[in-house]
Amino acid sequence: MTNAPSPDLVARFAAIVGPAHALTRDDDTLPYRIEWRDRFPGQTPLVLRPGSTAEVAAILALANETRTSIVPQGGNTGLVGAQVPDQSGTEVVLSLDRMTRIRAVDAEGYTMTVEAGAVLADVQAAAEAADRLFPLSLGAEGSCRIGGNISSNAGGTAVLAYGNTRDLVLGLEVVLADGRVWEGLNALRKDNTGYDLKQLFIGGEGTLGVITAAVLKLFPRPKGQAVAFVAVESPAAALALFQLARERAGHDLSGFELMPRIGLDFVLGHLPGTRDPLAAPSPWYVLIEIGSGHSDEAASATLEDVLGTAFEAGTVADAALAQSLADRQAFWHLRHGMSEAQKPEGGSIKHDISVPVARVPAFLDEAIAAVEAMVPGCRPVPFGHLGDGNIHFNVSQPVGADKAAYLARWEEMNALVHGIVARYHGSISAEHGIGRLKRDLLPGVKGPVAMDMMRSIKAALDPNGILNPGKML
Amino acid sequence: MTNAPSPDLVARFAAIVGPAHALTRDDDTLPYRIEWRDRFPGQTPLVLRPGSTAEVAAILALANETRTSIVPQGGNTGLVGAQVPDQSGTEVVLSLDRMTRIRAVDAEGYTMTVEAGAVLADVQAAAEAADRLFPLSLGAEGSCRIGGNISSNAGGTAVLAYGNTRDLVLGLEVVLADGRVWEGLNALRKDNTGYDLKQLFIGGEGTLGVITAAVLKLFPRPKGQAVAFVAVESPAAALALFQLARERAGHDLSGFELMPRIGLDFVLGHLPGTRDPLAAPSPWYVLIEIGSGHSDEAASATLEDVLGTAFEAGTVADAALAQSLADRQAFWHLRHGMSEAQKPEGGSIKHDISVPVARVPAFLDEAIAAVEAMVPGCRPVPFGHLGDGNIHFNVSQPVGADKAAYLARWEEMNALVHGIVARYHGSISAEHGIGRLKRDLLPGVKGPVAMDMMRSIKAALDPNGILNPGKML
Repeated sequence: MTNAPSPDLVARFAAIVGPAHALTRDDDTLPYRIEWRDRFPGQTPLVLRPGSTAEVAAILALANETRTSIVPQGGNTGLVGAQVPDQSGTEVVLSLDRMTRIRAVDAEGYTMTVEAGAVLADVQAAAEAADRLFPLSLGAEGSCRIGGNISSNAGGTAVLAYGNTRDLVLGLEVVLADGRVWEGLNALRKDNTGYDLKQLFIGGEGTLGVITAAVLKLFPRPKGQAVAFVAVESPAAALALFQLARERAGHDLSGFELMPRIGLDFVLGHLPGTRDPLAAPSPWYVLIEIGSGHSDEAASATLEDVLGTAFEAGTVADAALAQSLADRQAFWHLRHGMSEAQKPEGGSIKHDISVPVARVPAFLDEAIAAVEAMVPGCRPVPFGHLGDGNIHFNVSQPVGADKAAYLARWEEMNALVHGIVARYHGSISAEHGIGRLKRDLLPGVKGPVAMDMMRSIKAALDPNGILNPGKML
Repeated sequence: MTNAPSPDLVARFAAIVGPAHALTRDDDTLPYRIEWRDRFPGQTPLVLRPGSTAEVAAILALANETRTSIVPQGGNTGLVGAQVPDQSGTEVVLSLDRMTRIRAVDAEGYTMTVEAGAVLADVQAAAEAADRLFPLSLGAEGSCRIGGNISSNAGGTAVLAYGNTRDLVLGLEVVLADGRVWEGLNALRKDNTGYDLKQLFIGGEGTLGVITAAVLKLFPRPKGQAVAFVAVESPAAALALFQLARERAGHDLSGFELMPRIGLDFVLGHLPGTRDPLAAPSPWYVLIEIGSGHSDEAASATLEDVLGTAFEAGTVADAALAQSLADRQAFWHLRHGMSEAQKPEGGSIKHDISVPVARVPAFLDEAIAAVEAMVPGCRPVPFGHLGDGNIHFNVSQPVGADKAAYLARWEEMNALVHGIVARYHGSISAEHGIGRLKRDLLPGVKGPVAMDMMRSIKAALDPNGILNPGKML
C-alpha cells in the first residue's frame, strides 16, 4: 500500500527534475494519464519527466523511501493499460519522454545504444543512417518509445525473421526500485556470467525496475524483397503453404499473414483507394513476404519457386505478385487495414491469442464455431501472424445488432475463446501483455506455481511494491 | 548450510528411485563425482538416478525438508565444475541420465519436446529423422545431455546463425527447490503473459531448479553448404572479411572462425592426417561457412561473391574452397583440433572470453602483448568464434619451460587478461559458465547491484539453499 504524495513531497520530487519538467495541472497531465483508446482513464497528482538516468535514480530512491507508487511510461501506446495511473490519484507518472538520445551506433559491431525514450521510428532511422536494420516494426512506431517496446516485449510484423523485442536486446541499463542503477549495457553476443537478469525487465511491464537505456542488435539491411497476395481455400491450406515456404526460403521468409475474406470485404468497403488484387473471391488469403541478402530478383525467384510448387500441389488457388514497391505497399495496406476496417461494422470483441503454429487451423475451426453458437450472426474476422501462431481473433457484431448489448458480452466471449486457447496450450496474450486488462485472468492461465515464482521475484526486487502496482501481478 | 544425509535419510531417498538407481558404493559413484579433466574431484554419499519428473519432485521435496544439498547433473561434461559435488561428502548427486525420452517431435510446428537427460546427439538425430535441424552442436555432443546444455546456456559452432542454447528453448518443465513442478512446457512462438520465468533456469547452472524437460525450436535443414579456408594478414583483416560476409550472406553466414598460424602449426605437427590447405603460410586464417536453403551451388555462389570482393579489396591473401564434403570436414578438423594440438606443446593457460565483435582485433593486440611481457617466450594461440566476439585465448608455455612452474601462474595470467577484457566491456566466461572455477571472480565482474539481484532471486526461489550450493553465487 502506498500513499498519495503530500504537497511537500510533490515539491521534493519536482526539485529533482526542475519545475518545468514536473507537471501537476490537470491539463498538463492529461496526455500522460489517459491512453489513446481511453479505456483506462486515470488520475495523477504529478508527472515527472526526468532528463537523465541520475534523475530517474533520485526519483525512485525518494519514492521507495516514501512509499510512493510510480508508473513508468514510454510513448503511452500500450494496449493493456500498463502505462497509465489508476483512478486513486496517488500514483506518480514517470515519463521517459525526454530521454531520447541515441547514445551510440556501432555499425561494425551491429549494435546501437539508445535511451529508453527514443521513439521507435527514430531508432530505425538511426540504424538506417548507418546502413543497418533495426527490424522491430509495428503500427505505433511513430510514437511508441523503445523502453516501452522492451518493457512489453513488443511483437510486430518482423517476428518471423527476427524474433520478438526480447530477441533484439543485448543489454539494459535499469534503475531498481530502491534507486540503485544496474549497469547492464552489455554489447556481447555471448556472455555466461550468472543469471541473465535483463530477461526479467524485458516484458516486465515496469513492475521490477525502470529501463533507462538499452543496447540493441542490428542487422544487415535486406537488399531485396518480394511480396505476394495469395488465395487459399482454408487455414489448413495456408499452413501447408507456410511449411513449404519455411522449407524453401528458410531465414528469408520474413512475413506470413493470414486474412479471411470478410476482413478483405471490410477493407475494400471502408478504406478508400483499396482494391482486390485477385479476380475471383477466395475464402482465405495469405500475404507472403520474402527477403533477400542479394536482390529483388533473388527474392522473387524464391517466391516464385514456393508458389509454383504450391500451385502444382493444389495448395494455392491464385496469387498476385507485387510488381513494384507500390504494389507491395498496397498488399500490406490490405493487411494493416484489417483492424480499422472493422470499426464501421459496429462492435468488435477482440482476442490477442497464440497457439502452436501447426494447430492454428484446428483452433480456428473450433473457435469460430463456438462464437457463432454463442452469438448467432456474429462475424469472426480472425487475421494475423500465422507464422508465429499469433491470431488476432476479432469478432464483429451481427449486422443490425445493438452495439452496446453486443459489447456487454465481451468477457463472456473472452472466457469462451480463452477456454479453447487453454486446451490448445496457447496464450491469451501473445503480444500485447497483461497490464490491467488481463491481470485478473493471469492466475487462471499461469497456475499457482508460476504465480508464486512471479510474486516472489517481484517481492525480491521491489519489496515495497512501489513499481507499477496493480499491473500484471 | 546443509547436513550430510544420515543412513536413514539415504534409505528414504533411495526408496524414491528404487535401490537399483541409488548408488552409494565408491566405485559406482565415481563417474558422477569426478569430471573428465579431473579438476574438481568430489565426494558424495549418494547418487540418485530418478526415472521420472515425479521422482525428481519427491527427491527435492525430501531434500528441502531435510536441508540436504543436491547437485543436479546431466552428461557431466561441463568445464567449470558446476555439475560435480564438493569434497565435503554431504552433497547428493541427482543425475538425469535415465530421463532420456524424446517425448514428441512436431515437424509441422518446428518444435520437439525432450527429457533433460537426452544426449545432444540423440536430440539432433531425432530432429533429423523428422527432416528438421536442431542446430546446437559442440564437441561433447556425443555425451552431453540437453538439460546440461540448457543449464549452462551452451554455445558451440552454430551460434552465429542460430544463437546460443537460450535462443533455442521455447519452454521448460522444472522441479523447484521445494519439490513443486513448474509446468512451463510452452511451445509458443509468442507469449506475453508475465515474466519469462524460463530465462532464469537457462544458464542458471542448476542453482534455481532442476530442469526435467524442454520444448526446443527446430529449423529447416539447410539444403546446401560451402566452406573456405582463408589466409588473412591480421585479425583486423579477418574482421573486415566478417563485415563483408555478414552483409553479403546475411542469415546464411553460419560459421566464421579465426585461427593463428601457430595453432595451425600445432595441428599439422601433432594431428595425423592433417595438411595445410594453402601453399604459403599466413599469420592468420579464417574458416568461413555459408549455408543455403537451396543448394550447395547457391552457397558456393555466395561464398565466391564474398571472397571475390575481398580479394579485390586486398582483405584476403589466399583461399582454398572446399570441393567436397571430405574437404569441408578436413577444414573443420583443423579448427576443432586446435585445443587438442596444444597438449603436446606443454602447459596451456586458458581463457574463455568475449568482447564486442568489432573490438576483437584491438583486444588481441593488447592481450597478446601483455601475456608476452608477463611470460617472455610464451606462445599465445587465440582462436575461436570471431563472429560472436568469443575468443578462446589460450597461451602455451615457452618452449622448454617447466610445465608446473608455468601453470602455477594460471591465476596471475587470468587476472591480467581479465583486466583487459574488463576495459573492453567483455565477458570472462563467454560460453562455459561460472560453476566453481570462476565463482570467486564473479562479484568483481558483475558489481554489487547485479550480485544483490542474483542473490535475492536465489533466496526467493531456493530459500534453504539446497540447490547446487557453492556454484556460481
